[in-house]
Formats: sequence, C-alpha cells, structure tokens
Amino acid sequence: MASEIRIVLVETSHPGNIGAAARAMKVMGLRHLVLVNPQCDIGSEARARASGAVEVINESVTVPTLAAALEGARFVVGTSARTRRLGPELVDLRTGAAELAGLPDTDVVAVLFGPERTGLDNAALDCCNRLWRIPTDADYASLNLAAAVQVVAYELRVADGGEVAAAIGDESVEAAPAEEVAGLCDHFDRVARQVESINPEAPRLALRRVQRLARRARLEVSEVKLLRGFLSAVERATGTARDTDESDT
Amino acid sequence: MASEIRIVLVETSHPGNIGAAARAMKVMGLRHLVLVNPQCDIGSEARARASGAVEVINESVTVPTLAAALEGARFVVGTSARTRRLGPELVDLRTGAAELAGLPDTDVVAVLFGPERTGLDNAALDCCNRLWRIPTDADYASLNLAAAVQVVAYELRVADGGEVAAAIGDESVEAAPAEEVAGLCDHFDRVARQVESINPEAPRLALRRVQRLARRARLEVSEVKLLRGFLSAVERATGTARDTDESDT
Repeated sequence: MASEIRIVLVETSHPGNIGAAARAMKVMGLRHLVLVNPQCDIGSEARARASGAVEVINESVTVPTLAAALEGARFVVGTSARTRRLGPELVDLRTGAAELAGLPDTDVVAVLFGPERTGLDNAALDCCNRLWRIPTDADYASLNLAAAVQVVAYELRVADGGEVAAAIGDESVEAAPAEEVAGLCDHFDRVARQVESINPEAPRLALRRVQRLARRARLEVSEVKLLRGFLSAVERATGTARDTDESDT
Repeated sequence: MASEIRIVLVETSHPGNIGAAARAMKVMGLRHLVLVNPQCDIGSEARARASGAVEVINESVTVPTLAAALEGARFVVGTSARTRRLGPELVDLRTGAAELAGLPDTDVVAVLFGPERTGLDNAALDCCNRLWRIPTDADYASLNLAAAVQVVAYELRVADGGEVAAAIGDESVEAAPAEEVAGLCDHFDRVARQVESINPEAPRLALRRVQRLARRARLEVSEVKLLRGFLSAVERATGTARDTDESDT
C-alpha cells in the first residue's frame, strides 16, 4: 500500500460535506486531507459534522489549484458514480483499491473528489491514472460527496488489510511524479505544434489523448527522461530547419 | 438475494441522519426503510439531506417497537463498528453481504442500525442471526450512522449485482495488434536516429525501453495512429531541414 493516501476535495461547496468527509477518513484510518479552492468557509458546521475527527480538518491543507494538490503524487485516481466517455482507464472501486494495495510503500497516492453538483471536470480527469467507478443505482446515481469518501475509505481499508488480493506493481520501478508527467505532456504538445501535427479543428485533443495514455502507462522517471530527451532533440533538429529557412529568405 | 432488504433504524436522534440514510439507500437501489421509535421529527432537515431520495422517507414505515419492525423478516442482521463480547455470530460486512446474496429469493431480510450514541443494545442483538462488523480504525470507530448505512448498502449492491468485476474497460476501445505496436516502435527508432537522440554507446537501448513501455501501456489503435502521425510530422519537419542543408552545399 502507498505510504500516503491523500484525499483531495476539489471546490467543495458544503462545509458539512468537508466535516463528514474528515470523519469518514479518520474512522477508516486516513489522515491526509487536501482542499482545492473550497467554495465555502470551513467553520462551525464543518467541525460539528467532523465530530471527533476535527484534527483531520485542522491538519488539512488548502491549495488554490489542483496541480498544487497533486505535487509529489505518483498515482492519481479520480472517482465517479457515472461512466465517462473519454478519460482515464475506468475500473470498479474494488478493483482499483486492490490495485492500490499492490503499490510500493513509498508511493504517494491522491484520490480526487469533484464538486458536489458537477463532479470532476475534464481537466481534473486528465490528471488521473485511473478513474474509480462507485457502483450505484442506474436511475439515481446521486451519491453524496462525504458518502463517496466513506465508501472509498472503507474499500481502501479492506484492501489494505489483505482481504482483497493485490494486483499489479513492479516494486523495483520508480514511478514518475505527477508534475513530471504533466511536463512531458506539455513538451509533447509544444513540439507537436512546432511540427504541425495538430488538428486545427481540435487543437487540444492530441494533448488530452497523450495525457490519458501517459497516466494509464504509469510512466517511470527514466522513461519521462528518455522521452523528453527525444522531444528536445526534435526541437533542436526542427529549430535548425527553421533557422535555415529564415536565412534563405 | 433476498426479495426485500429492510433497513431498520432504531431510535435515531438526528433527522439529518435519517435523510442521509434514505439517500444512501436509494443510490444503491434499496427502498424499504423502517424507523423504530425515532427520537426526532422527520421534518425539513431530514428531507433536505435526503435530496432526491425523499420518496424513501415518504414511503418509510414508523413503528413503536423493534418487534414490529422485524415482522415477516426471516433473517435479521445487526451492524456494529465495534466488536461485541456476547451476541450473535460476528462476521465481517463483506462476508455477511456475500452470505446474504446466497439466500433464497423469497426471504425478507432486516438490517438493524442502532442509536447514534450507543449502537444496538443487547435486546436488539438477541434478535439477530448475525452481527456484521464494519472494519474501522482501532482508535476511532465513530462511524456516522448514515455513513454506516452507505457502506452496508454499497456492499449489498456489490454482492448482489456481481458488480465487482475485473476492470470494466471501455468497450469502444480497440487494442492495437502487436505488429502495429512494433511498427510504431521501429518508427520511433528511425526518427530518434534522425534527430540524433540515440546514445551511440547503447544504440538499441531507447528502442527496447520504448517497446517495453508500449507493451505495458496496452496501446489502442487510435493511439498508435496519433503517435505515428506525430513521428511522420517530425520526419517532414526535419526532412525539410536536411533537404535545405543539401541544396545549400
């Protein structure tokens, strides 16, 4: 199991949900709560619902952006009660929790929960290695935010206790942190524009697809280095081309 | 699975918990709510927390005694986040849910949740065929009532539906055949040589690492196409450079 499981609540609107999420975490042994740009005060209502878990709120970290919340995370998971069309690889919560139990002890994992009304947006999904689907009724998938945190925290606890078989994970490999993977994808995007390999009618599509692929592949530190070296070499080669063209004119 | 799963809340004190429990039930496809001698009004707070599950409250049955709540039930389960010394056979929630899935379709099952502060008393435990233990942190077992209903309802749904499968996967996705992946890796190797991104002391290493990455990522047909398009664009861009160089000489 990972050394740190970070529960990340993105733009939460209701303080009661933050408090209830803190309690849901502590009762299952989770402690690391990160709030991304919360849309409410973390005041008395949050503390009342946190009950004996107020320290999880006191020790929580509030950050302005999702990128800041993901710093250092080597595996990022989105949660949803719905099925998404484009996005990270979708697995059932139980399968995902088992997979997590197989990660090296040194890894930091972030589990993202979106705003109450809308859930995670595409930009957030693009940061995820996996999307965990929480099974719900087909006609009423309106799972409360704190209830979702509770179910996920419960599954993680059961999976950690060895009640569910572990899955993947080569422990000798060092997974690249989220910011390095993001840097690689952005680098790809720049070079793709430079060599005119971008469809002008959907200029963001290639980037999103590469982000999705990179997260699914769980890139290693050395692979990110290899691919960035390649992209830099392409930039040098095509930069020469452009300079030559300009000097010819 | 049983024909009816009855969620029985015994002497609940907080209307918000009743509303949240109704929502937790509906989102997992449960409908039968029985309130035993509730210690609060089922008013606006309960309805607000029920959100779109108000009909579960409207259709709930309020009874004065536990005996009345259990009428017709052929299997009675108690729930607890703590271990009880004396009482019915204790099993983990997951084990208990699996056992329930094996019951005849005609059976009516009641799952009991005790008052917020005290949990089920001995008289209630004596009515139970089983006691389900919800695993919690050893030092903080204070699981909120509605959160407990949510976790139990989730487990019942997973046990019933066979919703636990391996990876769901996206059925619209078509994995690339091995020869296409090999073609992509060779293409990468050619371009990497062209832009001089190959270590001359280990000229095959980059190719081998990319092959390994591509296998692990289980590339899709459309991803191979995207990446080959990018490599071709790089070739065009750098090919122009070479042609220009040559015509200059």
